[in-house]
Amino acid sequence: MTDLLIRNLRPMGAAQTDMLIRKGRIVEIAAGIEAPDMHVEDAQGAIAIPGLVEAHTHLDKTMMGMGWYQNTVGTDLRSMIDNERAARTADRHDPHQQSMRHALALAGNGVTHIRSHVDVDTQNGLGAMEGVLRTREALRDVVEIEIVAFPQSGLMVRRGTAELLDEAMAMGGDLVGGLDPCGIDHDPKGHLDTIFALAEKHGKGIDIHLHEAGELGAFSMELILERTRALGMKGRVAISHAFCLGMPDWNRTEALLAALADLDVPILTTGAPSSAVPAVKRVLGAGIRMGAGCDGVLDTWNPWNRPDMLDRARIVAQKNNLRSDADLALVLGICSTGGAAVMGVSGHGVEVGCNADLALVSGSTLAEAVATGGPVALTVKAGRITGRAGKPVMEAP
Amino acid sequence: MTDLLIRNLRPMGAAQTDMLIRKGRIVEIAAGIEAPDMHVEDAQGAIAIPGLVEAHTHLDKTMMGMGWYQNTVGTDLRSMIDNERAARTADRHDPHQQSMRHALALAGNGVTHIRSHVDVDTQNGLGAMEGVLRTREALRDVVEIEIVAFPQSGLMVRRGTAELLDEAMAMGGDLVGGLDPCGIDHDPKGHLDTIFALAEKHGKGIDIHLHEAGELGAFSMELILERTRALGMKGRVAISHAFCLGMPDWNRTEALLAALADLDVPILTTGAPSSAVPAVKRVLGAGIRMGAGCDGVLDTWNPWNRPDMLDRARIVAQKNNLRSDADLALVLGICSTGGAAVMGVSGHGVEVGCNADLALVSGSTLAEAVATGGPVALTVKAGRITGRAGKPVMEAP
Repeated sequence: MTDLLIRNLRPMGAAQTDMLIRKGRIVEIAAGIEAPDMHVEDAQGAIAIPGLVEAHTHLDKTMMGMGWYQNTVGTDLRSMIDNERAARTADRHDPHQQSMRHALALAGNGVTHIRSHVDVDTQNGLGAMEGVLRTREALRDVVEIEIVAFPQSGLMVRRGTAELLDEAMAMGGDLVGGLDPCGIDHDPKGHLDTIFALAEKHGKGIDIHLHEAGELGAFSMELILERTRALGMKGRVAISHAFCLGMPDWNRTEALLAALADLDVPILTTGAPSSAVPAVKRVLGAGIRMGAGCDGVLDTWNPWNRPDMLDRARIVAQKNNLRSDADLALVLGICSTGGAAVMGVSGHGVEVGCNADLALVSGSTLAEAVATGGPVALTVKAGRITGRAGKPVMEAP
Repeated sequence: MTDLLIRNLRPMGAAQTDMLIRKGRIVEIAAGIEAPDMHVEDAQGAIAIPGLVEAHTHLDKTMMGMGWYQNTVGTDLRSMIDNERAARTADRHDPHQQSMRHALALAGNGVTHIRSHVDVDTQNGLGAMEGVLRTREALRDVVEIEIVAFPQSGLMVRRGTAELLDEAMAMGGDLVGGLDPCGIDHDPKGHLDTIFALAEKHGKGIDIHLHEAGELGAFSMELILERTRALGMKGRVAISHAFCLGMPDWNRTEALLAALADLDVPILTTGAPSSAVPAVKRVLGAGIRMGAGCDGVLDTWNPWNRPDMLDRARIVAQKNNLRSDADLALVLGICSTGGAAVMGVSGHGVEVGCNADLALVSGSTLAEAVATGGPVALTVKAGRITGRAGKPVMEAP
């Protein structure tokens, strides 16, 4: 079903109206649309927003449905990485099954697009890539998944990883990933030269995790920007986390923001509650594309994150001290159209001519939808109903 | 009903057992308790924890049930204070009705004890005090409420406020409140001398809001500590927020923590996501009592907060980067026994002889209860069931 008539929805919180969808596109928005024989859904006054976009997560990591993971790990990045790599093997973690569970949970919560980093390392090889590629295919009609081949365990510090990344891209990776060129890999030049070369070879973009804070992160960011410029990669390199943009020196970060804007490098944030993070309004004010994500969910890393972009919008708003209705709507925008812009999705909106990728959320205003959170009443992907009352329509394995 | 038999609960996550409650106290914990004619509840394997304690909130502020409040206010403290004072009058806000709604929502979510600040100012007078005092009386059997008479709009900057605070204490205030002696009142000596004098006059303690960050907050904190020592108020003065303890200078904050410990000054935190906050493990490590609260909920101040201490435990854990099962249990402790210790409640536990003040929460471990959140299956106050499946048993007005 890609034709659908939704009655009594409120586009972006405006007055109640009807919406006609044909062949996966919005063809009419008006009160009292006549369309006999169409499947009809009654939105009962819910707000229609563009489908939520989970723009930074790790579908291959979740332990959803595997019982509670008792976390006894430290909180330094290296322990968490090593612990996870070992746990994957020990727990017979099935990346296909797990990514299906995670992606479907997201679909139940209003998500129509996902960018997922997927681990590639010399211990578990390409198993996670294979699993998530299968999930991408299986959920083709439910949610669009972009895959970043991600050297989570390090690239230069683990010989053979670059070759695996190369294979992962050949298998169907959409972007080359990277990770803390100084902090984890201890060889920023080697790390960045390798991932930029892979991106060039495969004609793909880059999305790099940059947890490095303060001056160290700023240094790595400059190296990324330098290569983006030199290799003509404008608009094709994204930076996730970018904690260094939260450092106190305004002049220093202002120069970085100007360069990011100039080279059209988008920022993906999780609003990480315990770190300094890029300020949403400052990044947007600089004209930089910005998306958001929940990061890993119920995995070996942390117990708090949920596969829920309304929850994430609340977290990002809280972290940024954004309180007004207008500001909450802004954050919700980052979690839908913002992420879509980062992923290069066109026609993501609630207007005639747009893709019928929608989330119907509760509340009198967009801000109330963020504040009260789910469940999302209905998720629609290309005119198909993929989620209802916070649950995916398709059963997870 | 203050006698109750609860079957199949797991005290603090331990093995499943039964609990017998008589006259509001836990008298037996054992498997297969025989107690004919008792009312029996089946916990179905839920974890029993001591009742959750909301140790920093504002029952008089919420707009719950009054329709969505469209927030167009700035985020500086003064605008938020002035906006709220005006809104109370304009919106015919009924502090009794609103505090009933808020307190009952908390009871539905496992809360058995509340410390609430209540506004006292020259525009709205003692109306909020009267309303919350009525609520305290009406909910005597549901939840224990401690009231802090709180000069939200300033004390020295609004002539007549001190006299109102004096009246509020005579009416039944449990503690004298205070607020940013420098930042808001611009007269730290005047502010602190006034509230300490009121506390002495009424033989009550103090709980002061200290949002002031960095050196300014440290200065105010020193003035508070100086008076606490000089006036023999050890153990009777608490500080809420204490953002200055989140400042980077470790030596500076270490000295403050030592003094707080020496004078037994507890810290109440909300884990404020956009501010530097006191680190939970550091405060506890210094031997300082610590409780937590959700702060104001659905009011003119912010749209995010919920009347839900499991949600708050998650926020505090995220803010503190606490991820392990042990650390999440620690945070949950702050939200129950920690707050109880700050409020001077004795016998708050899940052991024979303790008060039958309990929350039954879902999850295989305490950490999972925090991570997955509500609804709380059952709230028990002195053996009475006050909440069920996240809803209060008593209907809110």
